[in-house]
Amino acid sequence: MSERTVCVIGLGLIGGSLLRAADVAGWKVRGMARSDAVVTAAREAGFDVTSSIEDALADDALVVLAVPLPAVVDVLPVLARHAPRCRLTDVVGVKQPVAAAVARLAPAVRYVGGHPMAGTSASGWAAGSATLFSGAPWVVGSDDGADPVVWAQVAQLALDCGAHVVPAGAADHDAAVARVSHLPHLLAAVLASVGADGAALAMSLAAGSFTDGTRVAASPPELVRAMCEGNREALLSAVDDALGRLGAARGSLASTGGLAATIQAGHVARRTFDTTRDAPRDNTVHVELRASDALAQLRDLGRQGARVVALEGTRCQIELTASPAR
Amino acid sequence: MSERTVCVIGLGLIGGSLLRAADVAGWKVRGMARSDAVVTAAREAGFDVTSSIEDALADDALVVLAVPLPAVVDVLPVLARHAPRCRLTDVVGVKQPVAAAVARLAPAVRYVGGHPMAGTSASGWAAGSATLFSGAPWVVGSDDGADPVVWAQVAQLALDCGAHVVPAGAADHDAAVARVSHLPHLLAAVLASVGADGAALAMSLAAGSFTDGTRVAASPPELVRAMCEGNREALLSAVDDALGRLGAARGSLASTGGLAATIQAGHVARRTFDTTRDAPRDNTVHVELRASDALAQLRDLGRQGARVVALEGTRCQIELTASPAR
Repeated sequence: MSERTVCVIGLGLIGGSLLRAADVAGWKVRGMARSDAVVTAAREAGFDVTSSIEDALADDALVVLAVPLPAVVDVLPVLARHAPRCRLTDVVGVKQPVAAAVARLAPAVRYVGGHPMAGTSASGWAAGSATLFSGAPWVVGSDDGADPVVWAQVAQLALDCGAHVVPAGAADHDAAVARVSHLPHLLAAVLASVGADGAALAMSLAAGSFTDGTRVAASPPELVRAMCEGNREALLSAVDDALGRLGAARGSLASTGGLAATIQAGHVARRTFDTTRDAPRDNTVHVELRASDALAQLRDLGRQGARVVALEGTRCQIELTASPAR
Repeated sequence: MSERTVCVIGLGLIGGSLLRAADVAGWKVRGMARSDAVVTAAREAGFDVTSSIEDALADDALVVLAVPLPAVVDVLPVLARHAPRCRLTDVVGVKQPVAAAVARLAPAVRYVGGHPMAGTSASGWAAGSATLFSGAPWVVGSDDGADPVVWAQVAQLALDCGAHVVPAGAADHDAAVARVSHLPHLLAAVLASVGADGAALAMSLAAGSFTDGTRVAASPPELVRAMCEGNREALLSAVDDALGRLGAARGSLASTGGLAATIQAGHVARRTFDTTRDAPRDNTVHVELRASDALAQLRDLGRQGARVVALEGTRCQIELTASPAR
C-alpha cells in the first residue's frame, strides 16, 4: 500500500490546488483531467497528469474525486471497474448524495467522504494554489462503517494540505453547509436581483452592505447550482427557516414598525460567531481510531465545534474551545 | 453669509468625520455634541466644539444635522427657535421622514437633505476619519423647491470631503437605499440567526459566503434599527420583493429541484453591477442650477446613475457612463 500517494481525478480549483498542496507536503501525486489544455498546463508545471482515468488508477493510491457533483456518477462506474477496492475520498460540497452514489455504483471501494471548505468565486486549474486550504476546515466523513485506516489517510492529507479536520456525519454536514454555505449563496443571488430592480440609482448608491452581501453571486453559476441543488432537502429546511424569519420581520415592520427582535438576534448571532472563532482552543482530547466507538466520538466532538489538528498513526489529537458554542 | 462655514450637530462616526474632512478641505468648522467626553476629545483634537446647540448656531453657518433619525425631532425645534432661516442639511440614511419633520417643525429653514453613503460597522467620534467619504457617493436632495444656493453649498461640502454627489429626490433615494442598504442589513441578520441555529458544527464550517453575508450584522443594532425602521414603506416593498424571489426559489427547488432561474438572475445582476461600477464615465454634461427645470434635470440624471463631480458657482459638471445601466 502506498501510504502517501494520492491520485486526483479532476483538476479544477479544488483538485488542482490539492495536487499542488499534497506535492509541496511531500506526497507522491498524480492527476487526471479530461481537458487537454489542463493536462498540458499541469504537465508543464511538472506534474504527472494524464487524460485517462485508467492510467491514473494504475497503482494503489488514495483516490480523490475532485469533479463536480453531477460528474460523480460518471466516474464511479469506471472506478468500480478498474480499482474496485481502492481507497476513495472526494471534495464535493454535499456528502449524502455522494455516499449514496458510491454505495450504488462502486460498493466495494473503501470510501471516506471529504469536503475542504475553500473558496468558489474563482475556478479552474489556473486559479489553484498550494495554499488554498491553509487554515480552512476540511470535513472528513465519520459515519459508522468508515474504515479507520482510510479515515486516517484522508485526515492526514487534509492536515498536510494545511487544513484542520472537522469530523462529521454526512447528514450533519449537509444540514450545516445548507445554512452556512448554500443559503448564503441563494440569499446573495436574491439580494443582487432585488438591488438590480432598483435600477441605476440604486446601483450607484450601493455600498459595503450590498457588495459584501452579493459577493458570492459572482461565483460560477453552474457550480453554485450543482452544490445547492445537490443538497435539496437540507437546503429546503434552511430556506424555510430564512423565509420564516424574514416573514416575521416583515410582519413586525408592517404592524408595529419595529425590527428589534430580528436585528438583535442577528447581531448576537454574529458576535457569538466572531467570539467563538477567535476563542483559544486550549482543551485537547484524543481519540483512538481503532476504538469501537471512535466514529461516534468523532461525530460528537465535531458537533461541539472541535477539530482534529494532528494525527499519530490512528490517534487523533483534537482541540476544543474551553467553552464551546452551544 | 459665510460661504464655507459649517456647523455640525452630532459628532458620531459621520458627524465627526465630516468635521475633520471639512476642516482639512479648508472650511471653517464648528461642532456640537451632547456628550462631555466627545466635546473634550474633539477640543483636544483642536476643534471648536460645544455642548450647547445655541452656542453652535451663533453665526450664519451651513448647519449639518448629524444625529440619528430618532433625535432629529428633538433638535429641529431648537433650530427653529434659534436659527429659523438657517441653511440646513443632514446625513440621515432616510430622506422622506427628515423632510417631513423639517416641514413640520422648522418650516422656514432652507433645507436640502444629504446622505453620505459611508460605513456603519464602527461608530462614535473616535472611529471617525477625514477620509471616510473619499470616493463615496453622497446623495444631495433634489426635490422641487430646494434652494439652488443651498443645494450648491451642500454639494460643494460633499465634493470637498472627497465624495461625489448623486442627485436624487427623497422618495427615489428611500426606495433605492431600501434595496441596497436596509434589505442587506435585514438579510444579514436573518442569515446570522439561521447559521447560529445550525449550532457549533455549522459555525465551525462557516467560510467566506457566510462571513461576507453576515458582516454588517456586527453593526450597532440601534443604528441599524433606526435606519431600517425609519424607511418602513420602502423597506416593506424591498422585503416583499426578496420574499417573493426566495419563495419562488423555494418552490422551484421543492418541485423540480432546480435553482437555475434564481442563481442565473443573481449572477447576471452582480456582474452587471461590477461592470457598471468599473465602466469609464466619459460622458460629461452640465446643469445650471438657476435653470427653472434644474432639479428635474438633476433627478433624471441621478436615476441614470450620473454623479456630480465638480461645481463652478451654480454650474454642475456631471459624469455619466457612456452606456448607463438600465
